[in-house]
Amino acid sequence: MAGSTLATGRRTLARLLAALLSLALAACVSPPPLRGTGNLGVVIERASGSVQIVDNTHEQALARVQGLGDLSHASVVFSADARYAYVFGRDGAISKVDLLTARLVQRVEQASNSIGGAISSDGRVIAAQNYSPGGVKLFDADSLALLASVPAAAGANGQPSRVVGLADLPGKRFAYALFDADEIDVLDASTPTAPKIQRFAHIGKQPYDGLASGDGRYFIAGLYGEDGLALLDSWHADAGVRRILAGYGRGRQTLPVYKMPHLRGWSIAGDYAFLPAIGQHEVLVADNRSWAQVATVPVLGQPVFVMAEPGGRRVWVNFAFPDNDKVQVIDVPTRQVIKTLQPGRAILHMEFTPRGDAVWLSSRDDNKLLVIDTTTLTVRRTLPALEPSGIFFSSRASRMGM
Amino acid sequence: MAGSTLATGRRTLARLLAALLSLALAACVSPPPLRGTGNLGVVIERASGSVQIVDNTHEQALARVQGLGDLSHASVVFSADARYAYVFGRDGAISKVDLLTARLVQRVEQASNSIGGAISSDGRVIAAQNYSPGGVKLFDADSLALLASVPAAAGANGQPSRVVGLADLPGKRFAYALFDADEIDVLDASTPTAPKIQRFAHIGKQPYDGLASGDGRYFIAGLYGEDGLALLDSWHADAGVRRILAGYGRGRQTLPVYKMPHLRGWSIAGDYAFLPAIGQHEVLVADNRSWAQVATVPVLGQPVFVMAEPGGRRVWVNFAFPDNDKVQVIDVPTRQVIKTLQPGRAILHMEFTPRGDAVWLSSRDDNKLLVIDTTTLTVRRTLPALEPSGIFFSSRASRMGM
Repeated sequence: MAGSTLATGRRTLARLLAALLSLALAACVSPPPLRGTGNLGVVIERASGSVQIVDNTHEQALARVQGLGDLSHASVVFSADARYAYVFGRDGAISKVDLLTARLVQRVEQASNSIGGAISSDGRVIAAQNYSPGGVKLFDADSLALLASVPAAAGANGQPSRVVGLADLPGKRFAYALFDADEIDVLDASTPTAPKIQRFAHIGKQPYDGLASGDGRYFIAGLYGEDGLALLDSWHADAGVRRILAGYGRGRQTLPVYKMPHLRGWSIAGDYAFLPAIGQHEVLVADNRSWAQVATVPVLGQPVFVMAEPGGRRVWVNFAFPDNDKVQVIDVPTRQVIKTLQPGRAILHMEFTPRGDAVWLSSRDDNKLLVIDTTTLTVRRTLPALEPSGIFFSSRASRMGM
Repeated sequence: MAGSTLATGRRTLARLLAALLSLALAACVSPPPLRGTGNLGVVIERASGSVQIVDNTHEQALARVQGLGDLSHASVVFSADARYAYVFGRDGAISKVDLLTARLVQRVEQASNSIGGAISSDGRVIAAQNYSPGGVKLFDADSLALLASVPAAAGANGQPSRVVGLADLPGKRFAYALFDADEIDVLDASTPTAPKIQRFAHIGKQPYDGLASGDGRYFIAGLYGEDGLALLDSWHADAGVRRILAGYGRGRQTLPVYKMPHLRGWSIAGDYAFLPAIGQHEVLVADNRSWAQVATVPVLGQPVFVMAEPGGRRVWVNFAFPDNDKVQVIDVPTRQVIKTLQPGRAILHMEFTPRGDAVWLSSRDDNKLLVIDTTTLTVRRTLPALEPSGIFFSSRASRMGM
């Protein structure tokens, strides 16, 4: 009896012990090791609705996060502390991913069709740009609680316009264009529950994309309905929007346009802006003060992204189908193509490490990522990925015009 | 007896349980909570040999780390993952601080007198610039193991020159100037155990500081021994070093120089460089293409740091004694002082948040930090600090020319 009591007592204690230890271990084991977040990144896996979290110093994949919905057109911004990625899906959802725990911590379905978003310069407000219903919505970056819904001005059909080209400007502002209403708007989110909108009407027909300069001063919209681009100098907003690069666009097109280039691909390198010609096998070079075109660089296909290395010494170009298996590298001082790479099928995106030692490419049809050394122009590493498209590094957290 | 055995058994188990739990808890409790590192910073507390770790989103101090030696002149760079700060002290030591655990994880005494350092563009190599003995040493960024020691060319006294102005350039290179040997050197650390040096001799008398442009293309050295500045265009290194801003310097000085300005304070804002005149109550404005001086902005004292907001819209200026309790704000388009602040005694340094929503100031003699809203130009927060000097945010990890 005593032996039985003893055994029972021991069993009880042993069970208690085991339970407590297992609790303690659960608390212990589950947190991932401490690490900095300055060298992380997110790769969109478009067909599977997942993202990979990668480390761009050690050039390795860390984890896959699933359940992000339709990522056929997706973009990503980062929280100010570089811990969270906000993924904007084509289906109108914002997915907040914790890069440290590799978990989808929140998901908000905020529109039925969306084209991306941005984060305010103070990191407190997420702005989503929507096609349907057309407009901009503001969310708290921590909780993703809705702060304001701003319908866009109506287009010819009476519906709120589709919003494109949304970019953050300094001072908690966002700039964007209205495809159906020929407008550029600047939204001041200083009081995010009551944003102030400054509207610039009749800026040109059908702005289809936009970008901000790296210092957040200029906002430029590409025009689908006519040639040229619309430029807003936010330092002199009272002067309104003016037209630049009048010859830019579809007007002189001699080739079918396989893919409208992304304006976000634009790059300032040295004193010049490099931009993809539309429908032409050319990269255009414009003076970044006068915005006059000063040169063209012949390339092998229709350029999509034209991206300068962070140091501006070289510009990298990828192409529309059928040349989307190639990448060309332009030397900026001589404006010559110095290298043609054939790294994989369907090269959809490029992202440079923060100080430009490497560039990561996504090869959708070969299900891989390539890390290319920008000094030797050779492939340093290949990583598997499921139909990868966009690549976004967390150093974007401290950049403007994203 | 059975009861006694039971009690003994229980006590033993209880002790075992307690020991195991305490072990488990020790492992559990000690790691700090997970957090991103993109919004961290380090504040030098010069008299106490300590640094504060701060959070620039929540505007709060997180911890103090002590035992960093002589910080009377200190500078900081960050690891690529933004987890570690490397603090270069005046006493020639490099202290590696873990921002997550708030611990001094390593300290290397590598010279008897040092003036700072930099980290290579790939984040793998730390370079220290030394006065005594004069030269550059390269260290592994992870282990701080010495990789190479590069004595500087000898000055007139036959000793290796003091090294100043060390800055990282793209492609794992560093540029620096030799005060005693009138030289600018570019070091290629692609093979860090066998660095290659490119030397530019006779660049001007006594280069006393240097800076790289934000894209890492230009390296500019200030000359103590004569007027003007020495400019190296690293894209066209074969063209050598040329002289710019011939009127810049001590030659036309009419006031005693209380403090040589830091060249690192230079700023590109819009199309212009803003720089502190030496000994004059002026900020000079130069065209950033021709490097010709185009204007001067009168200010209230001798400028020390002249720093543009990240968006370039305004330039902030602090001053040498006896005006070091004031800060002036210049509007870039009109080149007018629009605000004079008197935030505290001995304002030694300024650091902008990555996208410019706030600027942090250190007030050494009031033992405080001030966080100023750049939109309203008002003090948003004050934090205590022990004789603070330099403030460095981890977003520098992804910037060039630091």
